[in-house]
Amino acid sequence: MPRVSEAHLAARREQIIEAATRCFVRNGFHQTSMQDVIKEAGLSVGAFYRYFSSKAELIKALAGEKIGTILGTVDHLMRQEPMPPLDEVLDEVLRQIDENLIDDGPVRIAVQVWGEAVHDPEFGELVGGIYSRLRDSATALAARAQADGQLPRDADPSAIGATIFGLLQGYILQKVLLGRIDRAMYLGGVRALLGAGARQTGPRH
Amino acid sequence: MPRVSEAHLAARREQIIEAATRCFVRNGFHQTSMQDVIKEAGLSVGAFYRYFSSKAELIKALAGEKIGTILGTVDHLMRQEPMPPLDEVLDEVLRQIDENLIDDGPVRIAVQVWGEAVHDPEFGELVGGIYSRLRDSATALAARAQADGQLPRDADPSAIGATIFGLLQGYILQKVLLGRIDRAMYLGGVRALLGAGARQTGPRH
Repeated sequence: MPRVSEAHLAARREQIIEAATRCFVRNGFHQTSMQDVIKEAGLSVGAFYRYFSSKAELIKALAGEKIGTILGTVDHLMRQEPMPPLDEVLDEVLRQIDENLIDDGPVRIAVQVWGEAVHDPEFGELVGGIYSRLRDSATALAARAQADGQLPRDADPSAIGATIFGLLQGYILQKVLLGRIDRAMYLGGVRALLGAGARQTGPRH
Repeated sequence: MPRVSEAHLAARREQIIEAATRCFVRNGFHQTSMQDVIKEAGLSVGAFYRYFSSKAELIKALAGEKIGTILGTVDHLMRQEPMPPLDEVLDEVLRQIDENLIDDGPVRIAVQVWGEAVHDPEFGELVGGIYSRLRDSATALAARAQADGQLPRDADPSAIGATIFGLLQGYILQKVLLGRIDRAMYLGGVRALLGAGARQTGPRH
């Protein structure tokens, strides 16, 4: 067997991930078989299984790529001094979600995998691992915003992180399942929530 | 055929919905066949199909019940004068979500149906209809909170409604897929977001 370069391996992996994405979006994640992906990728069965041996592995690779990009962006913004306002950071994350919703958007697959994770332990573990990383990143972002005085300092950063992550998940779900929503509108809503304390004039009891 | 009372029909419907819920949670929504539900309900095929003829109809009935309860609660709280603080209203909704997450929780089915809705137009329409009602309710809640001075009056209520709805969807997803989260913690995060404007001391640029 001839030696293959790292670049060749990476390109082949990428080709398979793209083929899998097309299949999952077109026919649904659950209904797509490994055979479908192999056919779409235009590879022999033997060649294919050198790269991926299960749908879970495909999802792990696909999600890892996308999430790595988002985590990198958040990390970059958090390292700025001072950190940009929280709503600007969230706007940038929403923009990246939007990019991944176009056409064969991987975000549409994510919603299907969530459904799978509810009753399939392999996917449950996979999704749990990925989302722990994302929620941890949201928690770090919250802590940074607290340190900058953008959020109340006495609150639990992991609690705020969970709600920030929740806002992002809600954006995805509504875009995919409901429509009639866009980034500017959603961000306007986030800003109104963040502005609630400042405008407080009504009764609190 | 003997005449059957309304009460009998309702009880039979309820029996079927409960059987379907158990099947969906145990084996996954996608993997459950109508035959599985009929067997679980202990009915004859003929008797069963007098009530429900598809999984979509089962889901519609199941979701309708649960969502009716939540909408009723929000409506009740919104009619109080003055309306309770927004965080108290959300706490009550989170409490109802928690109730529906125990054991055979229907909320776990919701996450699976979201996945189905991405690529199945029948479910897409079903979910779209249900969630429009919920998001409309969140929008009405936002408008009421704005009128009471709890939220900035110049913001678009449907934008705030989308983020409130997003926070609730995020809570469901994290509880089902990630764990390590509870109502008190999440609500603490929501309160910190709502308190952001008041505590603003850091740089805004």
